[in-house]
Amino acid sequence: MQIKVAKRGGFCFGVKRAVDMTRKLTEKVRDGVYTLGPLIHNPQMVEKLALQGVNSTDDIHASNIKVLIIRTHGVSSKIYAEALKMGYKVVDATCPFVKKAQQYAQLLKQEKYQVLLVGDKNHPEVQAMLDFAGDNVITVSNSEPVPALKSRVGIIIQTTQDIKALERVVCESLGYAKELKIYNTICDSTALRLREAKKIAKAVDLMIVVGGKNSANTTQLANFSKGICGKVYHIETADEIQDGWLDGVKKVGITGGASTPQWIIDGVVEKLQKISPGR
Amino acid sequence: MQIKVAKRGGFCFGVKRAVDMTRKLTEKVRDGVYTLGPLIHNPQMVEKLALQGVNSTDDIHASNIKVLIIRTHGVSSKIYAEALKMGYKVVDATCPFVKKAQQYAQLLKQEKYQVLLVGDKNHPEVQAMLDFAGDNVITVSNSEPVPALKSRVGIIIQTTQDIKALERVVCESLGYAKELKIYNTICDSTALRLREAKKIAKAVDLMIVVGGKNSANTTQLANFSKGICGKVYHIETADEIQDGWLDGVKKVGITGGASTPQWIIDGVVEKLQKISPGR
Repeated sequence: MQIKVAKRGGFCFGVKRAVDMTRKLTEKVRDGVYTLGPLIHNPQMVEKLALQGVNSTDDIHASNIKVLIIRTHGVSSKIYAEALKMGYKVVDATCPFVKKAQQYAQLLKQEKYQVLLVGDKNHPEVQAMLDFAGDNVITVSNSEPVPALKSRVGIIIQTTQDIKALERVVCESLGYAKELKIYNTICDSTALRLREAKKIAKAVDLMIVVGGKNSANTTQLANFSKGICGKVYHIETADEIQDGWLDGVKKVGITGGASTPQWIIDGVVEKLQKISPGR
Repeated sequence: MQIKVAKRGGFCFGVKRAVDMTRKLTEKVRDGVYTLGPLIHNPQMVEKLALQGVNSTDDIHASNIKVLIIRTHGVSSKIYAEALKMGYKVVDATCPFVKKAQQYAQLLKQEKYQVLLVGDKNHPEVQAMLDFAGDNVITVSNSEPVPALKSRVGIIIQTTQDIKALERVVCESLGYAKELKIYNTICDSTALRLREAKKIAKAVDLMIVVGGKNSANTTQLANFSKGICGKVYHIETADEIQDGWLDGVKKVGITGGASTPQWIIDGVVEKLQKISPGR
């Protein structure tokens, strides 16, 4: 059985940076290190960090915080300002590409555009971005039609969305707005990871997408692969692999989301190699 | 036989304004009235104006010009400035919507965007617009792929193009540019005329599109109708209608381009009514 592992699967620049920052911090500070929400959307990595003393909290007012880490998805300027006032140390691990998208949202607001944000309303990155885009922002998810718009519209998009979502929203917006300003804030890493996953999915009998079930971009990889390859599984760890999955399979493709650690992907490859010789 | 005449076929706002301006002028000035190129893309109307003493010239330096009329498509700022220096009167009949598109082209240039102009390179409106967009402008016609672009791109479109052309170019541009500023300079009249023509073409057995063979927007109406109705003819006047066209036809649709005079459309309707009773 042939195994093809995506080169672009696994930690993206922003996630690697946030994890490195957090680990470095734990070398100096032994307790009271908290992330505001899980640092990344990967339960196994979050668990590992917990063993190093990094816990997650939803409450910036919690009395036991000594250092608060802002995760890759960022936070609203209001929460950030409030955290700064608390007296503990605030470490900003917001992905620089997310930060840039926040600045564009703010710029569009300042330039008096009606801001349209393409993304998942419940995703923390989008929720933080809303604050920068101002009160009149409209959020449109990948599956929603674009509502009636004003004549000057500014568009930004969640960094981990697919370009097709942006294209669809822009085309629909052209039916309303006379002036459109678009910042394509999809990060290159997302675009390249999706492109590679599609290519691999085309060439294999079985596609395994590794990463948090709560990770939007991992779920997206799995969904796109399902449209191309007949047999796709989204797993968090190697333990979920079932022997029967490999029946009749000659080629397996493996990729991971932006928040999937390399050691988990390696574990999946090892498990497959262990099962495969007998086939 | 039923005849359905489009409400939106015929003179648009800009063409009506230019023809009215020219006619009013001929009431005061008896000779030396010239248009820079044919006033509109309709040979019959241009011929009629010639009978009223309005001739067309391609040479702004011609010695017999007393009044020079700039037609609806506009001219470059260079030609306009040169004409002003000639000492004769210059009457600017540029369509206000074209003028606005020229201003947007200039604005995008000033804001240092790489300007992408969607339209027909040989059309006078596009040729004039190029001057306002600056030296680095790229023109893309409806059938051409978008070439590699810089990271900041500004897009404008010939006022008589179809929204589908803009959508296609914008989607392709999103593959290159990180920041896109789009002015949808398609005039409402074009959009509504095309929409109505498509609706009529769907409901009839024969579609007759009336207007200059040199008129881009009339040709566009005919081409779009051909994709919907099985039998479509593009004619300039009623004389071209052949009896055989109506064989087996129960419903005829008629529309005209932005530069088609009402009297020509009326002539087509009369001719059809004359042929039809015997069928």
